[in-house]
Amino acid sequence: MAPGETMGTSEELADLLNRMPGWVKEMGITILSASPDEVTCELEIGEKHHQGYGIVHGGVHCGVVETLASVGAALVAMPRGQRVVGLENSTSFLRAVREGRLRGTARPLARGRTSQVWEAVIRDEQGRLVAQGRVRLLCLDQERPLG
Amino acid sequence: MAPGETMGTSEELADLLNRMPGWVKEMGITILSASPDEVTCELEIGEKHHQGYGIVHGGVHCGVVETLASVGAALVAMPRGQRVVGLENSTSFLRAVREGRLRGTARPLARGRTSQVWEAVIRDEQGRLVAQGRVRLLCLDQERPLG
Amino acid sequence: MAPGETMGTSEELADLLNRMPGWVKEMGITILSASPDEVTCELEIGEKHHQGYGIVHGGVHCGVVETLASVGAALVAMPRGQRVVGLENSTSFLRAVREGRLRGTARPLARGRTSQVWEAVIRDEQGRLVAQGRVRLLCLDQERPLG
Amino acid sequence: MAPGETMGTSEELADLLNRMPGWVKEMGITILSASPDEVTCELEIGEKHHQGYGIVHGGVHCGVVETLASVGAALVAMPRGQRVVGLENSTSFLRAVREGRLRGTARPLARGRTSQVWEAVIRDEQGRLVAQGRVRLLCLDQERPLG
Repeated sequence: MAPGETMGTSEELADLLNRMPGWVKEMGITILSASPDEVTCELEIGEKHHQGYGIVHGGVHCGVVETLASVGAALVAMPRGQRVVGLENSTSFLRAVREGRLRGTARPLARGRTSQVWEAVIRDEQGRLVAQGRVRLLCLDQERPLG
Repeated sequence: MAPGETMGTSEELADLLNRMPGWVKEMGITILSASPDEVTCELEIGEKHHQGYGIVHGGVHCGVVETLASVGAALVAMPRGQRVVGLENSTSFLRAVREGRLRGTARPLARGRTSQVWEAVIRDEQGRLVAQGRVRLLCLDQERPLG
Repeated sequence: MAPGETMGTSEELADLLNRMPGWVKEMGITILSASPDEVTCELEIGEKHHQGYGIVHGGVHCGVVETLASVGAALVAMPRGQRVVGLENSTSFLRAVREGRLRGTARPLARGRTSQVWEAVIRDEQGRLVAQGRVRLLCLDQERPLG
Repeated sequence: MAPGETMGTSEELADLLNRMPGWVKEMGITILSASPDEVTCELEIGEKHHQGYGIVHGGVHCGVVETLASVGAALVAMPRGQRVVGLENSTSFLRAVREGRLRGTARPLARGRTSQVWEAVIRDEQGRLVAQGRVRLLCLDQERPLG
């Protein structure tokens, strides 16, 4: 997306993201809304998300946190002509989950020109906290390689 | 696995783990060896592991780190009649990767009766560090629910 | 404190904590209020808190986060006859600070019988976020040694 | 220090660091050696480092980790005319300590032009792991403010 280009509505943007191939699709994440202030998603848990004991693998929660933070930070960075790349992901697992629909929400803690920090929570259908994570991202001007 | 039961060789154990359905298989991880002192794996990167900019999604690295740590900690816990559950995953992304074969190795930092800490590194085919992470796990006696 | 003993008001408890020698006093932290739902504190920044470039050393922010989380988790654990010990501290530095009064607030993310997770934010006098951290603590029954 | 200026020996540099006022001195840390490849320090534990239960406060361990990583990263950055500022500190507490002399060692995981990652371990006099941490730092060209 070019700097200054219109991003469309939060729903149009979510649609666009949900059509992209890659790890977000593999995880089964559906982005519900996406803005520079908040990103939300849903995820229907199945057996493919389990680890050996039959509960959701911690890597799934980390991946949801990483996805939400990256989408939000990218939306902040794009109008500046920047891209973002994740530096650190720190996720706490708060409740074991076997099935059902999870909902994730991320909000920014810092949206600097050089780096951003977003935090995300994942809740189950009863609204109970399942995981909480924080992601630090680096903002790169377009001419800079991703690493 | 029952307390005191023989675990077989590291390779037999790896085979067993690689046949299990779930998130480890979804990620495409192959466990190469697994003991209470070290766990190693390989992962062939494909487009399915990418995020929007065409590099490996951070959630993949977190998931590899979580898998290696969990397998190692479970091997420590099993002879005691315990299971393990991840509490915290903290992963640093050190180098962007687009393709090729990644190799992960995890070793224990602490193997207490109540909790364990394992750290893992992921390297590319040139041996360069791609990610490093640390996982804290809780050891649960068998009668305790996973949460 | 014995299980079931009355803890007094949040202010009485804060007074008690502020009279204790040790690292909390060394840091210059004043606990303002302390309950199982929220802990708050203040800290007047001086040159002793600086690192080499004249800004507050990151270890100060980590220490404030650790203190707030530990006090909160201890208040949850005491009525159960438990003590708590920190397992993990993950802190993001969001804004460099040179002087002035910082205010910290911690709230629980999980208050399980085996472990707890608390998150804390530190703000400057203008209310801007300076740091955010998360602490995982283990709950130990009184007869268990601290490690 | 100006870009290109000679830094002297590791011991001269350690001496210089140990004479500086601020939080490193408050913690009681003595830097033993400092180079772009490794930084080591010692710390004699006293009652001032304790939390309420009489063990070393987690903020002390975080502060040691932060100090070692910052010194190492600064030594990498200085010859480039850069300064460094900590972004993230993630520290695991592995063993409770009451007294004695602790020794810390930090080594780089990544020394990029934009950011660095250092990891540090803290051991007791018996060589047992007491804490392990990882710090992400941002490299800033001299004209850039620290935040």
